[in-house]
Amino acid sequence: MLPFTRLSVSGERFCVAYRLVGTEAEARAKAADICVEQTIEFPAELVPDDDIRAHIFGRVEDFHPLGENSYQAIISYAVEITAFELPQLLNVIFGNISLKPGIRMEWIDIPDELLKAFPGPSFGRAGLRELLQIHNRPLLCSALKPMGLPIEVLADIAYRLARGGVDLIKDDHGLTNQGFSPFKERVERCAEAVAKANRETDGRTLYVPNVTGPAEHAIKRALFAKEAGAGGVLISPGLVGFDTMARLAEDPRLKLPILCHPAFLGAFIVSQDHGVSHYALFGQLMRLAGADVIIFPNYGGRFAFTKEECASIVKGTQVPMGHLKSIFPAPSGGMSLERVQEMVDFYGQEVVLLIGGDLHRHGRDLAATSERFRKFVGAL
Amino acid sequence: MLPFTRLSVSGERFCVAYRLVGTEAEARAKAADICVEQTIEFPAELVPDDDIRAHIFGRVEDFHPLGENSYQAIISYAVEITAFELPQLLNVIFGNISLKPGIRMEWIDIPDELLKAFPGPSFGRAGLRELLQIHNRPLLCSALKPMGLPIEVLADIAYRLARGGVDLIKDDHGLTNQGFSPFKERVERCAEAVAKANRETDGRTLYVPNVTGPAEHAIKRALFAKEAGAGGVLISPGLVGFDTMARLAEDPRLKLPILCHPAFLGAFIVSQDHGVSHYALFGQLMRLAGADVIIFPNYGGRFAFTKEECASIVKGTQVPMGHLKSIFPAPSGGMSLERVQEMVDFYGQEVVLLIGGDLHRHGRDLAATSERFRKFVGAL
Repeated sequence: MLPFTRLSVSGERFCVAYRLVGTEAEARAKAADICVEQTIEFPAELVPDDDIRAHIFGRVEDFHPLGENSYQAIISYAVEITAFELPQLLNVIFGNISLKPGIRMEWIDIPDELLKAFPGPSFGRAGLRELLQIHNRPLLCSALKPMGLPIEVLADIAYRLARGGVDLIKDDHGLTNQGFSPFKERVERCAEAVAKANRETDGRTLYVPNVTGPAEHAIKRALFAKEAGAGGVLISPGLVGFDTMARLAEDPRLKLPILCHPAFLGAFIVSQDHGVSHYALFGQLMRLAGADVIIFPNYGGRFAFTKEECASIVKGTQVPMGHLKSIFPAPSGGMSLERVQEMVDFYGQEVVLLIGGDLHRHGRDLAATSERFRKFVGAL
Repeated sequence: MLPFTRLSVSGERFCVAYRLVGTEAEARAKAADICVEQTIEFPAELVPDDDIRAHIFGRVEDFHPLGENSYQAIISYAVEITAFELPQLLNVIFGNISLKPGIRMEWIDIPDELLKAFPGPSFGRAGLRELLQIHNRPLLCSALKPMGLPIEVLADIAYRLARGGVDLIKDDHGLTNQGFSPFKERVERCAEAVAKANRETDGRTLYVPNVTGPAEHAIKRALFAKEAGAGGVLISPGLVGFDTMARLAEDPRLKLPILCHPAFLGAFIVSQDHGVSHYALFGQLMRLAGADVIIFPNYGGRFAFTKEECASIVKGTQVPMGHLKSIFPAPSGGMSLERVQEMVDFYGQEVVLLIGGDLHRHGRDLAATSERFRKFVGAL
């Protein structure tokens, strides 16, 4: 038995809801296991009846059936065990138990005492609308691709998209710092091209380069991009860590909207019986980590997301979470001009409509196609 | 149609094997989709018959059945599209397609031209054995826990484990920088305790603190730990990004063995039909990212890994990969003294035996229990 321990903790706790697959007995055992696995990871019977047991152990606050062979356990944890740091918060929520089958993290509920450690999105929906001076329609976004095009061609595509009135022009998330498309040269040329179009049209289009890169390079690339005239940055937190995105959001030298790409995060959401819900991953966790726009695969595109999953992402982007701003959902993945009406019907005005390759299907005049996109959305 | 493009690429390609679930027609369609989704993400029919099509597109090099409703496609990619950077390499391997069901990344085969961009493990099995001067037996590891213990108690546990001859004493991966266990104080006290034991026994036990933390703090914590006398560092790449671990391995100021914890990575391996194989994730990718010891749940413990999965991890830690050193598997997750014989029978000598909480079950004298552990393994 360990020595008796007295801890200085506030008593404040945050809650995580898990869907547990199995019989009631199995689900109850899973809930009890989570309380230990996510905290002390130690034989519970060796811990005396002290403050570790009273405060550090997870606690099942609620347990109820969700459906056949499926239960929800709401488990609370002391805010102090997160160290008020994002990686350790993620670890408490779903670290070790990510390795166990039949456990899906559904949602989190975090009190202000913990939430205040996370500034979250700098812009959010309102801030991005203010920056773009667009208040009454969905925002339009497109991407610079395919990978392999010379920089002058990418810059020309950026120019045409901006001339046509696309609000946000992002790098393809696979463009990083390839020899055939070096980061600095690409960013300078594309930022120039968008600035030229903005001057000509009195526009406010933002160029959003991809700053995903090795460890400390993300912030270096973002600072370079800002200097070069970029209007936002794109990053894939699955590739560089959630906290690297949070740093971009917090850095006072940067202050640019952040578009978040879901690359490498799919394993969390592919199964209904495991991982993290669409709502929590794309909505709640990305807001904690500072995204202003969250890109995800729309239903009915190249990916297998359902309407219900997409609707739940939207909920996660706007559910009240203390001071954390609401952020934009950006459904994408093979979207087309033909689907704009349907997307606006489904998502309403508070959406970033991201159409990539399809804009190139409508003849050679990309600016004219972009203008059609813009006018169509403006007229909806 | 896009303008014709000529690229300066070497023609060198690397290969990724995917298991595809479905009928043969479905699997072939998935393979064709991966070639586009992981590279140009653009309507293929709009790309002219140029260098983008010839080089940037993924290419199906082989396709064959694996079993009922299951096929393997081996797809090659131009080395240049990775930008020779780890996050983008991961993106090409499994970025967007992580979001699609029925695709499992099985293994990678990377030519030297790309591999040379990744120094990999600094120590590996041979280097860690040399450091510890242990050449003829498995290495022993234990953990400082449970979370919530005062630092002086954790330091006392470290002292006793070191007195008993445990080779590697790591922080619990949930100990980061909590108010009740601040990083700097914990590391200083535990490093002192282990140094004292080493002086008394003429031992070489390494204290391995957890440096997982927000963005740039991982490297700062690692440098502090080295200064304070730590003999290695523990990090969870799932929480901070694979490349952050790679930076720890590369940093010439650090030069400490790296223990890698699988927290938050479980979603990749829980399903047979999705994600990344145990072999590739815990073996190949962790070596690319610089781990010297990879911790994973042993079969028959608190987790659901099978014997076959554990054996495949071992294969991944030692399969020839150019200059990348072989690394140690460290099966754990509820291991006990009683299972040491079985684990050595299964894993052989090239293993780190990680026993945490169970060492506390055998009476109050932790040093004596540790000594039993050591003698037992030495005598096997």
